[in-house]
Amino acid sequence: MKVFESVEEWRKHRAGLPRNLSLGFVPTMGYLHEGHLSLVRAARQNNDRIAVSIYVNPTQFGPNEDLAQYPRDRNRDLALLEKENTDWVLLPSDAEIYPPGFSTYVEPPEPSRLWCGQSRPVHFRGVCTVVTILFNLVQPTRAYFGRKDAQQAAVIRRMTQDLRFPVEIVVCPTIREPDGLAMSSRNVYLSPEERQRALVLSQTLAAGVERFRAGEREARVILESGTRQIANTPGVRLDYLGIVDQNTFAPVETVQPGNYMIGAVYVGKTRLIDNRVFESPGGCV
Amino acid sequence: MKVFESVEEWRKHRAGLPRNLSLGFVPTMGYLHEGHLSLVRAARQNNDRIAVSIYVNPTQFGPNEDLAQYPRDRNRDLALLEKENTDWVLLPSDAEIYPPGFSTYVEPPEPSRLWCGQSRPVHFRGVCTVVTILFNLVQPTRAYFGRKDAQQAAVIRRMTQDLRFPVEIVVCPTIREPDGLAMSSRNVYLSPEERQRALVLSQTLAAGVERFRAGEREARVILESGTRQIANTPGVRLDYLGIVDQNTFAPVETVQPGNYMIGAVYVGKTRLIDNRVFESPGGCV
Repeated sequence: MKVFESVEEWRKHRAGLPRNLSLGFVPTMGYLHEGHLSLVRAARQNNDRIAVSIYVNPTQFGPNEDLAQYPRDRNRDLALLEKENTDWVLLPSDAEIYPPGFSTYVEPPEPSRLWCGQSRPVHFRGVCTVVTILFNLVQPTRAYFGRKDAQQAAVIRRMTQDLRFPVEIVVCPTIREPDGLAMSSRNVYLSPEERQRALVLSQTLAAGVERFRAGEREARVILESGTRQIANTPGVRLDYLGIVDQNTFAPVETVQPGNYMIGAVYVGKTRLIDNRVFESPGGCV
Repeated sequence: MKVFESVEEWRKHRAGLPRNLSLGFVPTMGYLHEGHLSLVRAARQNNDRIAVSIYVNPTQFGPNEDLAQYPRDRNRDLALLEKENTDWVLLPSDAEIYPPGFSTYVEPPEPSRLWCGQSRPVHFRGVCTVVTILFNLVQPTRAYFGRKDAQQAAVIRRMTQDLRFPVEIVVCPTIREPDGLAMSSRNVYLSPEERQRALVLSQTLAAGVERFRAGEREARVILESGTRQIANTPGVRLDYLGIVDQNTFAPVETVQPGNYMIGAVYVGKTRLIDNRVFESPGGCV
């Protein structure tokens, strides 16, 4: 495994690689968990070489968000990536990604408008900008993202399609703790009590999917009951709960297989997101 | 010369090209003149293969601008490109570049703020977006732009640097008519009388450069005299006149070699732009 701390060193290396080599890329903000590692494994299976970036991207954090506190553990991350037979790790610095005079941003597409896009106004602009930079630096054949961040995946898919990046976007399933909590680097912020309360999010989404399976098709009905379930949990504040089209992230009135139920909550000061897909009876979407 | 009317056909062709082939790219809006052809020749000299795109990009025109009237002559353009030994011509359609649901835009960098960026509020956003799309489709080694559109060149250079496109930006000298008028596809709009009046722009810029050569260093002084020269020409209305840093396009107070004197005027309904560089005594910038 070769670790690149300099973007320029990486660029030289990338320019020398043969064109017919397939390259799988997993962009991360580090503090890796099983969710990230599942992406690395998927990339490992389908590409000749794999590259992972670890970069806590400042432009996707708002002024009152957790950029400074975001958890970091470079040595542990590198040990985990080594075990997954990662070929190349990129560790860019802020000074290299956002040098003085940097002022070009990617305005995110339509699926970014609502939900996390409303709660975190600069978030997807930062995500689209850094993903564009990383795509241009890495020039991957395929890039891997987690379904836990479903809106992000829809935004990146649309951006990739609109701007014609020659990259295949692969979205992999959410990895959960045994009790259902979606894995997230931010789970480390939770006190034991908060960790218990946080379960209400995945439980509410699972209950919504269950009501659909039992025949309910009105989004409003599923959402009202979910909103109540979260409101009844002390120490948990609802940010949003929605049922959306999987591509546009526009709200739907009548739920159909393939739609997502999405939610965001604050547990104490920690903001967590999760989602579930509504499946057709056969389990297909 | 192979002409691609379908973006998908081009993508397949591009994917099959060997990596070590250098590819020079000239993006144009067609209605080619000697300025465009000088870019094609520069590309021809320094690359194994060259590609030219002809696409009148709607997103860089404002609602009250000349998109519908913009001159087009595909057959003449193709004949000219054939004569220059062009390898590949791309003729994308609006439906392919901006399909339904298209909604990702590139917010242009700092050098876009003033001048043409103020007179034409959506212009550089459209330019940056389409150039990003074309860079991703063509994946050129080098891309060629004319110095006549100096602010555009500075914007694209900064965008390419910020977003890390693996493309070398080459900016080639302005080509002029014998009497000094900068070549532009829009010159075709001018009546014989307007064509004569339009000369005041290149003459004003040449006079500014001359005053610098004679020792004047105060931008204000050069600009005041230039503004008067244009105001005294009937049928010509000044849009802007400025002296700017060549990279940031911020106005300067004290003129230095390498700075640009830039101007935009309306001659009747036709908007024309031009610029001149302030040279040091030895002719270097």
